[in-house]
Amino acid sequence: MATIKEIAKLAGVSHVTVSKVLGGEIPVSRPAAVRRAKKIQQIADELGYRPNHTAQALRTGRTGLIAVLGNTPLSFDDHNLEEANILRRVAAMLREEGLNLSAQLCDRAEKNGLLPPWRVDAAILIAAYSSDQTEDVEKDGLPYVAFNGECGPNGSSVQFDDKAGVLMAMRALRRVGHERIAYMSNYKPYDHRSVPLRLEGYHEAMREAGQEPLPTYPNGGVSESEVAEHLGMLVREHGCTAIVCWDPWVALYAYRAAREIGLDLPGDLSVIAFNDTPLGSQALQPRLSAVTRPVEATARAMVELLNERMSSDVVAARSITVTPDVVVRESIAPPRQRGGVS
Amino acid sequence: MATIKEIAKLAGVSHVTVSKVLGGEIPVSRPAAVRRAKKIQQIADELGYRPNHTAQALRTGRTGLIAVLGNTPLSFDDHNLEEANILRRVAAMLREEGLNLSAQLCDRAEKNGLLPPWRVDAAILIAAYSSDQTEDVEKDGLPYVAFNGECGPNGSSVQFDDKAGVLMAMRALRRVGHERIAYMSNYKPYDHRSVPLRLEGYHEAMREAGQEPLPTYPNGGVSESEVAEHLGMLVREHGCTAIVCWDPWVALYAYRAAREIGLDLPGDLSVIAFNDTPLGSQALQPRLSAVTRPVEATARAMVELLNERMSSDVVAARSITVTPDVVVRESIAPPRQRGGVS
Repeated sequence: MATIKEIAKLAGVSHVTVSKVLGGEIPVSRPAAVRRAKKIQQIADELGYRPNHTAQALRTGRTGLIAVLGNTPLSFDDHNLEEANILRRVAAMLREEGLNLSAQLCDRAEKNGLLPPWRVDAAILIAAYSSDQTEDVEKDGLPYVAFNGECGPNGSSVQFDDKAGVLMAMRALRRVGHERIAYMSNYKPYDHRSVPLRLEGYHEAMREAGQEPLPTYPNGGVSESEVAEHLGMLVREHGCTAIVCWDPWVALYAYRAAREIGLDLPGDLSVIAFNDTPLGSQALQPRLSAVTRPVEATARAMVELLNERMSSDVVAARSITVTPDVVVRESIAPPRQRGGVS
Repeated sequence: MATIKEIAKLAGVSHVTVSKVLGGEIPVSRPAAVRRAKKIQQIADELGYRPNHTAQALRTGRTGLIAVLGNTPLSFDDHNLEEANILRRVAAMLREEGLNLSAQLCDRAEKNGLLPPWRVDAAILIAAYSSDQTEDVEKDGLPYVAFNGECGPNGSSVQFDDKAGVLMAMRALRRVGHERIAYMSNYKPYDHRSVPLRLEGYHEAMREAGQEPLPTYPNGGVSESEVAEHLGMLVREHGCTAIVCWDPWVALYAYRAAREIGLDLPGDLSVIAFNDTPLGSQALQPRLSAVTRPVEATARAMVELLNERMSSDVVAARSITVTPDVVVRESIAPPRQRGGVS
């Protein structure tokens, strides 16, 4: 790797000058110094010089690194592709400020997402982290922003308005004539604030429409055949014509169950699910309608809170709530008129 | 964050002693020193002390960090979930040696996967990196292992035997009676060694069976309706009863096309695809058979080559080729007898 010494030799200046220039100390008022600085930068680029972050960190007390903790990026799959999209946008925004997102990649079974062994200025805790992890970050005193999860006194958080998401999904279904709408929650036990919030939202929306909520598919480990049974009961006994699903995987199980009991999609059953991922938008047919997280607004909120957290030690925890979007696709159609069926 | 000074105060020893103990210098021959070391370690744990990696790096010349470069882990989706699985296993193996995988998270459009601003001992270049990235790593002099891709003189590589993969897939189809087997390549332009290798494997396998290869679906941006047209032609004009697909997404398009032209799956058409991901194994019906990369063998090869690369500067580049596995699921059935159809 090229060193400051080599660059200094080629530029014909002292290594102190090189160090100052590459560290960003350019005396803009003196044209000769600016020209010299440009030349030094050019030589550094040609030699493929990389700044010694360690030295910079010692000098400035800053590393320019933000750690991503919690759900390791190696665990991303169709379930959390929305998170990955948002983090990519966060990364691009931070890069404009000279900050880099870094992550320790590890096995999910291991001490997943603990603090990395390199020094960082702040952290992003992404959904599905454990309270142990929040505790570790709090203990360390590191400023952080929690992504769709709770945080302690050193953190701020960006939350999604899960209730609004359910209401928006139900509005999209009501707009084309659905009234008997059911909610199917997550199929695996999952301890996250979104689970009770979405259910609450559903109950509220039904009550506001003057309806009893339909029986809710439980939060817990149930089999695909149980989904079919539950869906059959909703349709036959409750006249259900539309469902709001926890995510595209629950929608997939519902699609299968619906076909198994002879329902046409979307003719007999309209479906909308939280999270817009390729499984729903590309693999499923009819293409799945979705409650989705706005990438730009969410990324902007993350970056705003991160900067706030890093700029001062005394700032109080803040939470920004982002309202979801709804994308309507082929999976939503007006309910079929069932002539004579009571 | 807890400091060595604080630990020293609580343990009633000098900070030099604490530093030695936490740095791993425990004089095992003296029981009193061992007891003291245990106490120091306990206090450090209680205070949540994290070793200063920077100081360790300066002392040992090693950081214990391995960078993952190339396709950023934020880009993982159903396409490369196999890679994520293997990297997770690599991470677990490396952790046993005290090494950590680290990644710089960035936007795909940015200078994706260049060297991180923190110091690392070596790098893993994962598939879909560009030759620019290989050049950067070579220029830097960093030892590295390429994952399913080419490498320069400082690197070693783990390759997948793509030809063997095609042969194994075709063997699984022939075993139940298929003879007229087609190959459907990737649907997007993609410059990777696997593209020509799999095609070659297909041609070889057909020639060895004394057959003309069936027309191959092209490598390039074609539409879903073109897939349907191509598949119809293969079935009607070439008596095709089975296909080997580039990946589960190509299989998904083939499933749709097959149903559009009235084919029953797997009765009229058996399908197998490279890469075993949730889209194929869980979302598609019939559940997709797959050519898959063995996680354990691949991870072991990666770790072996990494250790070799880091242990000495003079070792020559080595390549380990891993043979895929085949998983047969519902998507493969004996070809239906077509009585009287010419």
